[in-house]
Amino acid sequence: MSRWAPDARERLETAALELFAHNGYDRTTASEIAERAGLNRATFFRHFADKREVLFGGSGRLQDLLVQTVAGAPASATPIDAMAAGLEAIGTVLQESRGRTFARQRQSIVTASAELQERELNKMSSLAGALADTLRKRGVDEPAARLLAEIGIAVFRISFERWVSGPRARDLRELTRESLAEVRSLTAQDGRVPSASGAPVSHAA
Amino acid sequence: MSRWAPDARERLETAALELFAHNGYDRTTASEIAERAGLNRATFFRHFADKREVLFGGSGRLQDLLVQTVAGAPASATPIDAMAAGLEAIGTVLQESRGRTFARQRQSIVTASAELQERELNKMSSLAGALADTLRKRGVDEPAARLLAEIGIAVFRISFERWVSGPRARDLRELTRESLAEVRSLTAQDGRVPSASGAPVSHAA
Repeated sequence: MSRWAPDARERLETAALELFAHNGYDRTTASEIAERAGLNRATFFRHFADKREVLFGGSGRLQDLLVQTVAGAPASATPIDAMAAGLEAIGTVLQESRGRTFARQRQSIVTASAELQERELNKMSSLAGALADTLRKRGVDEPAARLLAEIGIAVFRISFERWVSGPRARDLRELTRESLAEVRSLTAQDGRVPSASGAPVSHAA
Repeated sequence: MSRWAPDARERLETAALELFAHNGYDRTTASEIAERAGLNRATFFRHFADKREVLFGGSGRLQDLLVQTVAGAPASATPIDAMAAGLEAIGTVLQESRGRTFARQRQSIVTASAELQERELNKMSSLAGALADTLRKRGVDEPAARLLAEIGIAVFRISFERWVSGPRARDLRELTRESLAEVRSLTAQDGRVPSASGAPVSHAA
């Protein structure tokens, strides 16, 4: 098969997950991944900067999609609704591209390594930063933009983990909507009755 | 001065910040820190596992205080109010122990190093994990416990950064209360009027 085969990237990802799971992340080399995928080492490095990027290479595309969707939400959308649209979009891609089995395998490899967990935290932190920037461009002030971005990424991360590790397959977007509803419910619990005007009830008042 | 002087730890912290700021974190050794503090290397290692811990050594005590305060909140307190009490307690300690000047110096050193930033993310992730455990022990289910813990730590982190980097000294606890009120306001914005009964309005409904 040509090294330019359109599915080279996907084959490398599949081969890498199999080798990481079988031999351990640390003991697997880029050359071995390429070989298992029926490709050569140079092809590996055209697709990924290093073996770690096989696990994290999708995050840039997810970030772009999140940013574009939030930026493109109607001007009338509230900040949280714009953000929810972005989470819905990345949920759709995660579910419909490589799907839950791939995500499960990837997750078990990341969880087994402190280095990979740090990398995951870093990627999530970048995602939150990009989301906050996008919200600011929609006119959301600080600290609201950063707070909402952190909440959005927490909702995404926790929903993703539930999707991956739950006993049965559920819809990732449904899990995300549930978590967002949970956040609304938790933050509304302050023992005060919300005002009928819909004005937010300040805890600090 | 005796190496058992009660303020040895604080002197080491001060000396370390001065050296990190002046010579850079990477080029400073534990021996140099001890020497500048008028102590010996062995004393340094009685207080800190390594030079990195000079910057992060306080986080264990903060975590204990957070956990104890949240666990000790009245049984009648809502989850978010129990969490707010915990954030108030750690805000008080941060403000009244070494204070804002120390926090500013520490922050500028952490911000300058990718390694230290990763460590900071890790510590915050541990703090969120401990807070989620404590909320679960108060009877909060999943995913609510993790979601609320992530929100709490985001509120703390963003308030802390505003406290440290703002143009004028403000009360850290006041900043935390403002951020929590902002979260309530943001999550209440869904274009629906909250019900007069105070029941949470679900976005997913």
